[in-house]
Amino acid sequence: MLKQNYSSRLLERAVEEFSSLPGIGKKSALRLALHLLKQPKENIERFGKAFIDLRNEVKYCSVCNMITDDELCAVCSDPGRDASIICVVESIRDVLSIENTERYKGLYHVLGGIISPMDGVGPGDLPVAELIRRVKDGNVQEVILALSTSMEGDTTSFFLYKKLSDYPVKITTIARGVGFGDDLEYTDELTLGKSIENRQIFKLN
Amino acid sequence: MLKQNYSSRLLERAVEEFSSLPGIGKKSALRLALHLLKQPKENIERFGKAFIDLRNEVKYCSVCNMITDDELCAVCSDPGRDASIICVVESIRDVLSIENTERYKGLYHVLGGIISPMDGVGPGDLPVAELIRRVKDGNVQEVILALSTSMEGDTTSFFLYKKLSDYPVKITTIARGVGFGDDLEYTDELTLGKSIENRQIFKLN
Repeated sequence: MLKQNYSSRLLERAVEEFSSLPGIGKKSALRLALHLLKQPKENIERFGKAFIDLRNEVKYCSVCNMITDDELCAVCSDPGRDASIICVVESIRDVLSIENTERYKGLYHVLGGIISPMDGVGPGDLPVAELIRRVKDGNVQEVILALSTSMEGDTTSFFLYKKLSDYPVKITTIARGVGFGDDLEYTDELTLGKSIENRQIFKLN
Repeated sequence: MLKQNYSSRLLERAVEEFSSLPGIGKKSALRLALHLLKQPKENIERFGKAFIDLRNEVKYCSVCNMITDDELCAVCSDPGRDASIICVVESIRDVLSIENTERYKGLYHVLGGIISPMDGVGPGDLPVAELIRRVKDGNVQEVILALSTSMEGDTTSFFLYKKLSDYPVKITTIARGVGFGDDLEYTDELTLGKSIENRQIFKLN
């Protein structure tokens, strides 16, 4: 009989490793493992090494906590960026998403999480003191809070708002509303309601 | 400016490796790479090593070509299996699928491919001589051809049928028809037509 329905412990281990990743089930994991098995040996070693190197060698920007290969990230070390605006985000992925829009020229502050008592993350676990220091020491005019609108995100935004309100800095948050190209009928009621309340002037009469 | 929209060459490399896998796009690859980054170092090393070990140490059964950790696979080395039936399949995955049904107690012969001139695979590239030898030397009563019904699969089945017809062995192929639980209206016409032609007796009058 085949053990665990795989015929090889090595294959089973590879399938288990793949299926421990988010969004990858046992079937996809098996397909991926058998795909790798057909590749040349050097490709597999490169594949494995890419993740080991990433984990062992990657650095975090000493200013904004963004992932980087150097002491400072590409944004913080770019003199062309507007150092008077800091956009506070939860994750590295949020920075990459905003950078992809090519519409933001300020700096970032990556929290690496949000306040979530359920997950054991309190205010003290986030780099808030570092944000305050940047606001206090630098020439920061505006802090954009770009956190999610979940309960945890709102709690974190409110906490940061309270902490920052002692300093002469404008605090903003990203616009919420119906997405470009979205149908009104498929938009949730909260978003649609808020998009009407917060309507923008198109033409003054 | 961020290079290639990633902020780290190491991250970029990990994303590239992930997105080289079938069915994984750049967005999923980024999500997976950032997920791995949050794991403990030993998990990542175990992850990378699982694939390197799989590729370097895995063996193929000397009888049926199934993946195995030993000289013989779990099926071929099991005395409880019926050695008089050989089921010919294209891939390792096909064996795992049939094993999962727990309805087959014979042996297998994994071709590792099918005849496909477009991909440069000719009859000489498949372990057909090995199959003939098993039929000739052993006590084989039946060969089941369980290849796909694509042009390549049919060509391969016909080639094997010609090669095997010199030997006193029954040659069968798996039943094709409407799947259990499938709606007739969503079944393709070829399958539905064949399922009527090849109808089975339910009750003799």
